[in-house]
Amino acid sequence: MKTEIINVGNEVLLGSILNENARFLSERLASIGFELLGHRVVGDQGQNIREAFQEACKRGQLIIFTGGLGATLDDLTREVVASQLELPLEKNSFWEEQLEAIYSKVGIELDEKRKKQALIPEGCKLIPNNNGTAPGIIIEKEEKLIILLPGPPEEVKPMVEDSVLPYLKGKSPWNVIKTLVLKVIGLGEATLEDRIRDLIEVEGNPRVVLMAQSTETHIYITVKGMNKDDVDSILKDWEGKVKEKIGSCLYGVNEETLEGVVARLLFEGNYTVSTAESCTGGLLADKLTDISGSSNYFLQGIVCYSNEAKMELLHVPQEVLSSVGAVSEETARAMVENIRSSSSSHFSLSTTGYAGPSDDPDEPAGLVYIGLGTPQGTFCRKFNFWGSRRSVKEQAAVSALNLLRLYLEGHLK
Amino acid sequence: MKTEIINVGNEVLLGSILNENARFLSERLASIGFELLGHRVVGDQGQNIREAFQEACKRGQLIIFTGGLGATLDDLTREVVASQLELPLEKNSFWEEQLEAIYSKVGIELDEKRKKQALIPEGCKLIPNNNGTAPGIIIEKEEKLIILLPGPPEEVKPMVEDSVLPYLKGKSPWNVIKTLVLKVIGLGEATLEDRIRDLIEVEGNPRVVLMAQSTETHIYITVKGMNKDDVDSILKDWEGKVKEKIGSCLYGVNEETLEGVVARLLFEGNYTVSTAESCTGGLLADKLTDISGSSNYFLQGIVCYSNEAKMELLHVPQEVLSSVGAVSEETARAMVENIRSSSSSHFSLSTTGYAGPSDDPDEPAGLVYIGLGTPQGTFCRKFNFWGSRRSVKEQAAVSALNLLRLYLEGHLK
Repeated sequence: MKTEIINVGNEVLLGSILNENARFLSERLASIGFELLGHRVVGDQGQNIREAFQEACKRGQLIIFTGGLGATLDDLTREVVASQLELPLEKNSFWEEQLEAIYSKVGIELDEKRKKQALIPEGCKLIPNNNGTAPGIIIEKEEKLIILLPGPPEEVKPMVEDSVLPYLKGKSPWNVIKTLVLKVIGLGEATLEDRIRDLIEVEGNPRVVLMAQSTETHIYITVKGMNKDDVDSILKDWEGKVKEKIGSCLYGVNEETLEGVVARLLFEGNYTVSTAESCTGGLLADKLTDISGSSNYFLQGIVCYSNEAKMELLHVPQEVLSSVGAVSEETARAMVENIRSSSSSHFSLSTTGYAGPSDDPDEPAGLVYIGLGTPQGTFCRKFNFWGSRRSVKEQAAVSALNLLRLYLEGHLK
Repeated sequence: MKTEIINVGNEVLLGSILNENARFLSERLASIGFELLGHRVVGDQGQNIREAFQEACKRGQLIIFTGGLGATLDDLTREVVASQLELPLEKNSFWEEQLEAIYSKVGIELDEKRKKQALIPEGCKLIPNNNGTAPGIIIEKEEKLIILLPGPPEEVKPMVEDSVLPYLKGKSPWNVIKTLVLKVIGLGEATLEDRIRDLIEVEGNPRVVLMAQSTETHIYITVKGMNKDDVDSILKDWEGKVKEKIGSCLYGVNEETLEGVVARLLFEGNYTVSTAESCTGGLLADKLTDISGSSNYFLQGIVCYSNEAKMELLHVPQEVLSSVGAVSEETARAMVENIRSSSSSHFSLSTTGYAGPSDDPDEPAGLVYIGLGTPQGTFCRKFNFWGSRRSVKEQAAVSALNLLRLYLEGHLK
């Protein structure tokens, strides 16, 4: 099915933000075999939306919009598309109730302007949005399929995964299309490509695609077929082929996140963890507490930026700090062992390093020591990360989580 | 000048990479007052490039291509555009010499395929590329201006800054175009729009545009004029008009961030801060330490998820926890006062709440108490945030930073 994507919004058009929605949609649609013809980005004006829609209709059978569904005056996608298709807009009571619940909670009146988010074209299907006030809309008319989605990527992604892709898969000539996402950490995209090149170079079905994310790489394996058992068996076979080549760098599949996998391993063992952070400045604790129910395993975290805090809160010996310094294996070890014993947790993690930026060769930005405290003793690792201050913090926090995962899965000896 | 951007390349079309070129070009062109009509992304096939070019010509006076200028068979932008404009391609001797120098250096023979990168349409201007083998091309024909640039963003950016922008500024009827970005927190986009509607609805010059970000909203004011003093004075005047209507919700301008403004205020007063976090789980400390040099003001952070940690590390009285509970003004107050005195910092921040998700009406997701400890006493605020667990954590951490900003700027009494 020939597909066009139209992204509406001045913030993308004028370059304030990257077009994350187009990238995400393209990649997900290509993975289930839709033929992408193009993306178009236009501003919020009705005339531009209309022209883009008319042009897309000439070429595409499936047209996906993002943006322009909000409550402000310049949110016009819904109105323009309905008018072009000569469909009247009508109130969706289910969504009006949702809006009432949301706005009453935050203490804002649900006025007429905000109510327009509950309007959908007559006879069309609503896509619920659990993270925002604008629902998505699916319109089937005259051999065309038109899908309207909101603008914020954090709203678009779950709506696409939960509603749009299952719906589109039903439109495909294949009975079954399945995609397995394998998530890899600790191997760059280029290295990973070299390792599994023979699988990537196969044309057609199955299809293997790599996607580099900020601190990890994802491998998408898509299989199309006429029955579920065949597809599952091919997918299983290919998953095995990939696993053989990347081993313990594979941390999870599909919706799993590194934080989620670590949380599951901690839950399963009824384990607890505490953190002592310097260069990651709280980001490691933030990641560990991103999982619902994390109060069951996360006991406490200490962010000790100054040497004084390291001595006072974590009893890092003054001799260590004055001889080898705060950025050292010895300090990482003292931090991780002290937080583990003072909090009585099963495990502990520590980070100390130079987040940067720095021109001082004695304080090289990206040099980070990570400690892992366990009942069987302490592990320390030295890393040289690259990039901005934020990127060094991210890589350090993720590497600490990964160290704990590798231990809990029995890969660290 | 009405402008269209066309990005050619399967890697962008299929979602393997983000469209960094479109973002960069849009932002730079908007900043010098060009009117962006749209971006279009197409794959490498000649037919798609041709169609995109024809459509763009209908609307735009300036059309900028990126991608499709390389030496491989599927690099067709140059050929398609030249043929559409009926301009023959001819050899540019200057660039052929450059190619000879580049290829001989890396030991690759300059064959006919690679030589095609030195072809430019008759009578057109070449834009040198110091970081790659494909030069840019400027074509002026029949009232249209067409600019071809290579695909890699690291080649595009310096070519745009060094050659394209200076060239385009010469084409602008205005001598000076300036944009001021005002950054607003604590007012939703729709509310903000209501407040400054009379400024937004002015057509033309100055132009005011709103852009919602995840936890804040930005106001773009663009002024065009014939001399710098006039433009600066209009910008100052409009900045004042906006400020009058939104007051202390305006936290910064242009490149400033909330973290950066708080850091600056702390630096200026030589102040220190510590944090005691429950529901934000380290995110607040993470934000406070995102600024280079934060070790000068950030003393320590404690993440106390469990009641035990709250009692042990922050001396929250057992009676408070068992009477009003951990999510209460009393707990936020005890946390913030204890961390302030134990760390001897000038200021302290605390968060306690339900990050969610939760179906329990006794633990409503989004209910958060934030405490601010100061030498003049403690402030507490209750919030009802909305959205995913991650979104509640983000809103809570940002609101805590904002509370400290409001105090340091003298808005809290």
